[in-house]
Amino acid sequence: MRPSGRALDQMREITIETDYTRHAEGSCLISCGATRVLCTASLEERVPPFLKNTGLGWVTAEYGMLPRATNTRMRREAKNGQSGRTQEIQRLIGRALRAGVDRVALGERQITIDCDVIQADGGTRCASVTGGWVALRLAVNKLMKSGDVISDPLTDHVAAVSCGIYAGQPILDLDYPEDSEAGVDGNFILTGSGRLIEVQMAAEGATFSTEEMGELLGLASKGVGELVAAQKAAVA
Amino acid sequence: MRPSGRALDQMREITIETDYTRHAEGSCLISCGATRVLCTASLEERVPPFLKNTGLGWVTAEYGMLPRATNTRMRREAKNGQSGRTQEIQRLIGRALRAGVDRVALGERQITIDCDVIQADGGTRCASVTGGWVALRLAVNKLMKSGDVISDPLTDHVAAVSCGIYAGQPILDLDYPEDSEAGVDGNFILTGSGRLIEVQMAAEGATFSTEEMGELLGLASKGVGELVAAQKAAVA
Amino acid sequence: MRPSGRALDQMREITIETDYTRHAEGSCLISCGATRVLCTASLEERVPPFLKNTGLGWVTAEYGMLPRATNTRMRREAKNGQSGRTQEIQRLIGRALRAGVDRVALGERQITIDCDVIQADGGTRCASVTGGWVALRLAVNKLMKSGDVISDPLTDHVAAVSCGIYAGQPILDLDYPEDSEAGVDGNFILTGSGRLIEVQMAAEGATFSTEEMGELLGLASKGVGELVAAQKAAVA
Amino acid sequence: MRPSGRALDQMREITIETDYTRHAEGSCLISCGATRVLCTASLEERVPPFLKNTGLGWVTAEYGMLPRATNTRMRREAKNGQSGRTQEIQRLIGRALRAGVDRVALGERQITIDCDVIQADGGTRCASVTGGWVALRLAVNKLMKSGDVISDPLTDHVAAVSCGIYAGQPILDLDYPEDSEAGVDGNFILTGSGRLIEVQMAAEGATFSTEEMGELLGLASKGVGELVAAQKAAVA
Amino acid sequence: MRPSGRALDQMREITIETDYTRHAEGSCLISCGATRVLCTASLEERVPPFLKNTGLGWVTAEYGMLPRATNTRMRREAKNGQSGRTQEIQRLIGRALRAGVDRVALGERQITIDCDVIQADGGTRCASVTGGWVALRLAVNKLMKSGDVISDPLTDHVAAVSCGIYAGQPILDLDYPEDSEAGVDGNFILTGSGRLIEVQMAAEGATFSTEEMGELLGLASKGVGELVAAQKAAVA
Amino acid sequence: MRPSGRALDQMREITIETDYTRHAEGSCLISCGATRVLCTASLEERVPPFLKNTGLGWVTAEYGMLPRATNTRMRREAKNGQSGRTQEIQRLIGRALRAGVDRVALGERQITIDCDVIQADGGTRCASVTGGWVALRLAVNKLMKSGDVISDPLTDHVAAVSCGIYAGQPILDLDYPEDSEAGVDGNFILTGSGRLIEVQMAAEGATFSTEEMGELLGLASKGVGELVAAQKAAVA
Repeated sequence: MRPSGRALDQMREITIETDYTRHAEGSCLISCGATRVLCTASLEERVPPFLKNTGLGWVTAEYGMLPRATNTRMRREAKNGQSGRTQEIQRLIGRALRAGVDRVALGERQITIDCDVIQADGGTRCASVTGGWVALRLAVNKLMKSGDVISDPLTDHVAAVSCGIYAGQPILDLDYPEDSEAGVDGNFILTGSGRLIEVQMAAEGATFSTEEMGELLGLASKGVGELVAAQKAAVA
Repeated sequence: MRPSGRALDQMREITIETDYTRHAEGSCLISCGATRVLCTASLEERVPPFLKNTGLGWVTAEYGMLPRATNTRMRREAKNGQSGRTQEIQRLIGRALRAGVDRVALGERQITIDCDVIQADGGTRCASVTGGWVALRLAVNKLMKSGDVISDPLTDHVAAVSCGIYAGQPILDLDYPEDSEAGVDGNFILTGSGRLIEVQMAAEGATFSTEEMGELLGLASKGVGELVAAQKAAVA
Repeated sequence: MRPSGRALDQMREITIETDYTRHAEGSCLISCGATRVLCTASLEERVPPFLKNTGLGWVTAEYGMLPRATNTRMRREAKNGQSGRTQEIQRLIGRALRAGVDRVALGERQITIDCDVIQADGGTRCASVTGGWVALRLAVNKLMKSGDVISDPLTDHVAAVSCGIYAGQPILDLDYPEDSEAGVDGNFILTGSGRLIEVQMAAEGATFSTEEMGELLGLASKGVGELVAAQKAAVA
Repeated sequence: MRPSGRALDQMREITIETDYTRHAEGSCLISCGATRVLCTASLEERVPPFLKNTGLGWVTAEYGMLPRATNTRMRREAKNGQSGRTQEIQRLIGRALRAGVDRVALGERQITIDCDVIQADGGTRCASVTGGWVALRLAVNKLMKSGDVISDPLTDHVAAVSCGIYAGQPILDLDYPEDSEAGVDGNFILTGSGRLIEVQMAAEGATFSTEEMGELLGLASKGVGELVAAQKAAVA
Repeated sequence: MRPSGRALDQMREITIETDYTRHAEGSCLISCGATRVLCTASLEERVPPFLKNTGLGWVTAEYGMLPRATNTRMRREAKNGQSGRTQEIQRLIGRALRAGVDRVALGERQITIDCDVIQADGGTRCASVTGGWVALRLAVNKLMKSGDVISDPLTDHVAAVSCGIYAGQPILDLDYPEDSEAGVDGNFILTGSGRLIEVQMAAEGATFSTEEMGELLGLASKGVGELVAAQKAAVA
Repeated sequence: MRPSGRALDQMREITIETDYTRHAEGSCLISCGATRVLCTASLEERVPPFLKNTGLGWVTAEYGMLPRATNTRMRREAKNGQSGRTQEIQRLIGRALRAGVDRVALGERQITIDCDVIQADGGTRCASVTGGWVALRLAVNKLMKSGDVISDPLTDHVAAVSCGIYAGQPILDLDYPEDSEAGVDGNFILTGSGRLIEVQMAAEGATFSTEEMGELLGLASKGVGELVAAQKAAVA
């Protein structure tokens, strides 16, 4: 029933190539099917003004899409400014990753996660969260190896997957053809231990019931489990 | 337990003053406790370029806060541009209201809902959705009265309420003191018949379980029921 | 002769509702006929850089119009930046109010007057000056009550009214239908004791004589007298 | 008493060098004492959208100051955007010049007057109006010579002068040292026949009486008379 | 003598991976040593306004660097606008590629070359020109295969290399450590047949002689020869 | 053969009027034929942040064109922001002038060279470099006269000229009609002693050979010799 022939609860293939770039403190290229996102973690020994002298660290994220990551070329945001969609996504990624960080343990330093979409086929914000966590993990590993940080500031894995209702059926991990047809879709961000961090379900031209919400939650838990396994393999 | 002394599932007082301004095709001043939002509906006999000659109408929203709607004066967005938060909110309001609109019945015209916060005490985006629907209803009534529109384009009520976990307890309709302390909070947008349109739950420095998600859904259904009753009374 | 049936030297009805919002140090909703402006005064214990360590205070103003304050919806300035007209108006309001302030007595603190037009029917900048003074007065009263300021920094009332030549006749307090037809119109800002602070007369497609200028000055004095009386009643 | 030794009602020396640049349809370099402004008139056979198919022409103005026209270098507006002051001035110049134009006689074409301050010593906006009229006159002369325009669209001269109260005395044509000290100052724009087009008097830290307003009007009439004579000599 | 141990006239290793992304009409990932640039060609069946109805095509380029392509994270241009350096580079790339295009043969269509730097180690603009030509070649091949274009619009190869004077010696293909130390450096863009398209040599804190200019030209010819060979192998 | 009747290696007439404005520390109006640029040097006793406490001075440049400096009126950059071309030019001017400055001898101060084009007929960036050096020389003379600077920070003259290939022939000092027709053209910046500082040759729709590059270098040397002689005469 799905254009790709996948089962309703079947994820796309996940690959995570770590240390993809040489300059960043942590980096990976994550592929979820044909969606490919380059995630880098940049460490700075300073925090935003509102955190100065609090002893707390900060994790933030920025998101971008290369103009021809998509089927039709998009206008370059460097020329036109970030769209509302872009700002919404990068706020989401930062918020999600911070939910898995002990900011006291991190200490007064900032890690910026840049998520740049090389190729898009749906689910870019979820891939950014999942890959962003890997880049963050690698950067934090360096901090711990050097002794700058003693106690591990990462309290758990963080990963995200999209779910939606497509042709009347709840499905997992939408690709672009599904995403553009689904009347209801959204994103679930969970920890490695299965707790919810963020739920964003939205309908455009449709509505959904409480029961369907429950089914989507179930699919999301399954999908995030597989993503966390891939993260573990990547950073091992 | 709540700072205001409200019960866990108790809404703040809701008042909706219709026809608050003279120029708009529909308008109301909605108060949810101390949160006050002026909602106006502006009708234009044109649609955005991507809808030209499709026969479909459009409903969109813009959101703003007066600089001193809040406890500490905020910088005026007209001087600094809209923040990511503002853009996120207005996209949400527009999307939510469109979920209750039959765009074929509306015909090729656009209604813009402006939601301007006069005074803020938490829940401004929810009040904007609920009050925005009233302004939209009044503007559509004029279109039907004049005969420009024959079949009612509004398929159902749309209203929104916030829920969160505060001091370990799921609560309904957070005011500002609760909102700033809650580790988990979010917004639920539902139709008059209790179907979900949008769910946005986010944790900052906390996580939540599937069971808690269920309890919050229950609170939201109760709250929206009361909001829809207030909408009905206002537009009667 | 006037569309509203008013006498040539007749003001519209003035109402001033003080303490309209809960957060601001001073606030009022001023109505001059159908023109309604929300004025708030925000106190900050800091001054702009050019006044640091001078012992002098500062009073400044910002002005905005809600998009549907007018008959036809205007584009939201938060999306497009402040127009030249808006900047011109807010500079005028600030300059006018400062003319009635002893900045030594105020001490090194800043009061920002926000004037936001809820509904427009001509004369919004004049209503902003007149209402802005009331908000300022209320905020300064708090400073004096708390003992932060000893000697009253407000040296006199400040109020403003528009005058113009309409259908060949000098008239007082133009509403929108008059304003859009008048070939000559402008604004007079005076103190409570009848001294001039600012005069701005402009012709578009017409000119005027020195004699007419004198008549307009006379009308303005009469009008400001009534406005000052309303201010006195409001802050009593 | 004046820093320059001028009498209270004495203008600075006025020189107007016409055809200062080769590309513009009309141009002059006007000097009012040490204030020097290059004024060019650019003709376009199109009008702004709001005038299409109305048969009416348009005259508009833009104003700028070279960064080192002033004693201390100012930031370049091309890098930072036009200030509120700049926008206010260019709106004033355009409005003033239009008051002397028969837009039906001009026909559906636009003339843009650019006023760029090469060197500033007070009174740049007045010099811009006075010199701008000369550039406009020269451009219109070409239109009439070529037969594109039959009946002269310029109904009268337009010129401007500043007046103020300095050390308690009304004075004419303020230079920069006077301008920066005067508690009250402003600009008067008149026609060749002595009718008022625009009056802008503002006080910063002072007020003025109706009688003083009358004296300033008298000085302005005298000054504009001399400016109009200089215009006549220049375009003869 | 060179930090990398290369000979004075030795290029870094060049690899060109074609069809790197799935959506673009042509694409490659070019590596010149550790510098890696993703180049995509996007075809649109429209031209900029100034070319409408001329029968001529257009090739243009845009350039960007991912924030952590460099050793120290740079601010994201989508948040801050394109720097002067970025604009200068993208104008250069477009101009260079157009020099090898027969715009009549291309017909009224536009090809946009996006050059996004994944990892930077000096010479990113040269790699962009060289890789951009490959993406352009692949996109044009598609146009010819489909019959939309009959006669090949690409008249020759276009490739670019940097040269400079480092420690007193003319060297070829500077990497970042050399680039940041060289007092004189620049870029040479040549055709496959060895004709010059663009020369940009600049000194910062040094000067150079006509003889040195000659030596640099010689190095550049050698380097571009090798780049053109790599292009041929890639598109074969 | 040249539209102006000049010989292939003939410069336009050069005039340099020093001390053109009264406020700047150094200034001149340079004319190269009909191209006229006002150059001012502004001294500030501060340096950009990246040079604080280094003991090094800074010379930078800004460039602008008055809207009607050209045959067709251009949009004012203060309204639209600086174009890529403008930014490219002002970076070039600053870089070129710095090549002739001993920044240790200058000491921790900044000189900003503003180059504003009053009238354009090709070669405005070259005239800006040549005239900018004169303004810089005059400002530095003042610093030396006052004793603020002991050892002359200017190590040599800096001047620039354009060359190009027009109708198949290398020519010197292109005017606008030549510039708009030449397939190859560029700018050469040299010191008084004939060393190269910057070479920028670009082809649009043509290419050139190494031999032609040599001929252009020869022409440029001749032209700059004449410009340096004019600089010497001006500042004598």
